[in-house]
Amino acid sequence: MRTITLITDFGLQDGHVGAMKGVMRSIAPQAELVDLSHEIRAQDIRHAGFVLKTAYSYWPADTIHVIVVDPGVGTERRAAAVQTGAGIFVAPDNGVLSYVLAQEVVQGVVALTNAAYWHHPISASFHGRDIFGPAAAHLACGVPLLELGETLRPENLVRFAIPSPHRHLDGHMTIHVQHVDRFGNCTTDLPGEWLHAAPQWRIEVPGAIKDGAATIDGIAHTFGDVPEGAPVALVDSTDYLAIAVRNGSAAQMMGLDVGAPIEIWPIAND
Amino acid sequence: MRTITLITDFGLQDGHVGAMKGVMRSIAPQAELVDLSHEIRAQDIRHAGFVLKTAYSYWPADTIHVIVVDPGVGTERRAAAVQTGAGIFVAPDNGVLSYVLAQEVVQGVVALTNAAYWHHPISASFHGRDIFGPAAAHLACGVPLLELGETLRPENLVRFAIPSPHRHLDGHMTIHVQHVDRFGNCTTDLPGEWLHAAPQWRIEVPGAIKDGAATIDGIAHTFGDVPEGAPVALVDSTDYLAIAVRNGSAAQMMGLDVGAPIEIWPIAND
Amino acid sequence: MRTITLITDFGLQDGHVGAMKGVMRSIAPQAELVDLSHEIRAQDIRHAGFVLKTAYSYWPADTIHVIVVDPGVGTERRAAAVQTGAGIFVAPDNGVLSYVLAQEVVQGVVALTNAAYWHHPISASFHGRDIFGPAAAHLACGVPLLELGETLRPENLVRFAIPSPHRHLDGHMTIHVQHVDRFGNCTTDLPGEWLHAAPQWRIEVPGAIKDGAATIDGIAHTFGDVPEGAPVALVDSTDYLAIAVRNGSAAQMMGLDVGAPIEIWPIAND
Repeated sequence: MRTITLITDFGLQDGHVGAMKGVMRSIAPQAELVDLSHEIRAQDIRHAGFVLKTAYSYWPADTIHVIVVDPGVGTERRAAAVQTGAGIFVAPDNGVLSYVLAQEVVQGVVALTNAAYWHHPISASFHGRDIFGPAAAHLACGVPLLELGETLRPENLVRFAIPSPHRHLDGHMTIHVQHVDRFGNCTTDLPGEWLHAAPQWRIEVPGAIKDGAATIDGIAHTFGDVPEGAPVALVDSTDYLAIAVRNGSAAQMMGLDVGAPIEIWPIAND
Repeated sequence: MRTITLITDFGLQDGHVGAMKGVMRSIAPQAELVDLSHEIRAQDIRHAGFVLKTAYSYWPADTIHVIVVDPGVGTERRAAAVQTGAGIFVAPDNGVLSYVLAQEVVQGVVALTNAAYWHHPISASFHGRDIFGPAAAHLACGVPLLELGETLRPENLVRFAIPSPHRHLDGHMTIHVQHVDRFGNCTTDLPGEWLHAAPQWRIEVPGAIKDGAATIDGIAHTFGDVPEGAPVALVDSTDYLAIAVRNGSAAQMMGLDVGAPIEIWPIAND
Repeated sequence: MRTITLITDFGLQDGHVGAMKGVMRSIAPQAELVDLSHEIRAQDIRHAGFVLKTAYSYWPADTIHVIVVDPGVGTERRAAAVQTGAGIFVAPDNGVLSYVLAQEVVQGVVALTNAAYWHHPISASFHGRDIFGPAAAHLACGVPLLELGETLRPENLVRFAIPSPHRHLDGHMTIHVQHVDRFGNCTTDLPGEWLHAAPQWRIEVPGAIKDGAATIDGIAHTFGDVPEGAPVALVDSTDYLAIAVRNGSAAQMMGLDVGAPIEIWPIAND
């Protein structure tokens, strides 16, 4: 029997997660239900997309991932199931799968329009329980993807622009904070491998200038390369450049949040 | 093997959940343990009761639900297991099962007095680990309900008054906020089907008058029927009337919390 | 198949837990993965150690416990797996196993140096995903402990000093808050059984003197022995003396946090 992972913004103080899991368990008594996160910021599609991106590729390719961050519930936004070589993704068609669609080969997409696989009566505000959860559970039971609804063309799925560095004529780049984790580590949109293009780099965090923590010289290998409380730039576990503070919060210390710009210059070795 | 769901107010930063699950796993190696919520507000029986109400009915009827929100632990309050047509409920007899008892046919009730099914030594403050968890685990292993202790009469179980609308002579009703969810959506105590009694309704939130968000005309079908940031009244996924704000927090914007009164008038269609 | 429990400080708003579980599931498709806590205070080794202490002993002795609170990740700190009579513990060698090492007979210890059991490529900052999780998963699949790396001597493992009461010449003791739980209950470092040494005790909380809540006379059996909102001292579910407030927060009301000193005097019965 297959594994279904869950990413939602439901939090854990309400009955939403319990209701959704109950519907799934009733449909697929043998499926394994695994919580990835229910603490996505409310209705934050980009947050959910990044959490999914950093987790899904570590799961077996027959895993079914359900993502319910759904500010457009009850509107015309579509519900989708996407089969890729790295798993099946069941989610609202609102951009939350942008990273997956940029990285994986899509083998099939359907809109979840077949009401035979919904939980009835359908509510206007909780499609996690009534549409997405049931779809995932039926897939786990072996229902073919194409049974769940009308076929869609992958290129018609909604995608947000994945943040990426801006290269300037003088050789420096403006990069952006893409995610702030629990520790206040700030993952940027600069892929770690791009750093091979120069022997060394200098980083400037504009918003932190007044605090005297504006400049970081060089890319470290680990947190341990700098003293406690010092800022550090390194390639983090998501393979992007991150700005961090050893045993502290870079977000707090340097005033960083998602989208904040950071400047990075290639420099010659000393 | 059977599923046991857990609802507690233990939070997840302590060892309580881990200890309770360990005892259950030791008794019932094959039982599936599923977290519904450990983030119930500390000692808030009504909060736990509502979360349970919104989740349990979606689970298979052979599920065992354990609810440990237990401000009276160590006092004379009884511990109970209640068999219904919709599952077995194991909880302190403090009212947390009020909604279940109002909705389900009770087939048997026992007080958990048989010390042979406790985890020893019994602590004075953690009956989740020592009494409720073990009882659920033994039930999952097939121990008959009546083995767990003395039979109780269902009508002797503690219940709180389930909130309900107050009908006035002029035809309008005073309803009350029954639950505030993570998004700030406010579920009232007005069952959605009551709204069929008039062609349309006008809602007034007394506490919000000064903010100019006091009146909502008409019941919407979905959040998408109103602009971003606008208040909206709709029947939510729990089948009650809810006051919400599209992509915002009604609780915050309108100053609402559990128990807050809201007025609703039947009106003729335009 | 075996159970693997997880204690981390990753929180649940990022993809870290999902990535780590995915790696483990890919290695050990049949292992049961159980969350104990992902809400350990960031990089707080003592907090994690105490949560582990209060949970592990309730699990079957073939359970594998993974603890990832790892401020030294990327430095020279070792990664370890420790076989005891009460389970296997996989964790950074940073003191987080201090309580376990003080309580259990160690049957074998290895450093996780065998790269054949790592997840590659190894990151510099996420050994939960790349080293600890994979080690636990391979153990769950039956890989012998000694396969995972070089044998270590138990006495060379890092330990922190477990807090303990200080006995004064006049017979009174200075004890310390060892843990504050979600409810604000303050577990001290005084083992409950030490209280048998005198017929009764008087407790003084120095920091609370100005609030008039400084003194507690006598050890209660349960919360119910005092009125709502009153301070109470009792042996809690961890078998230590705790300072609590009935249906309130002792930490908040008495200004207590981990490490805070409390004085306790033996007194004769009245």
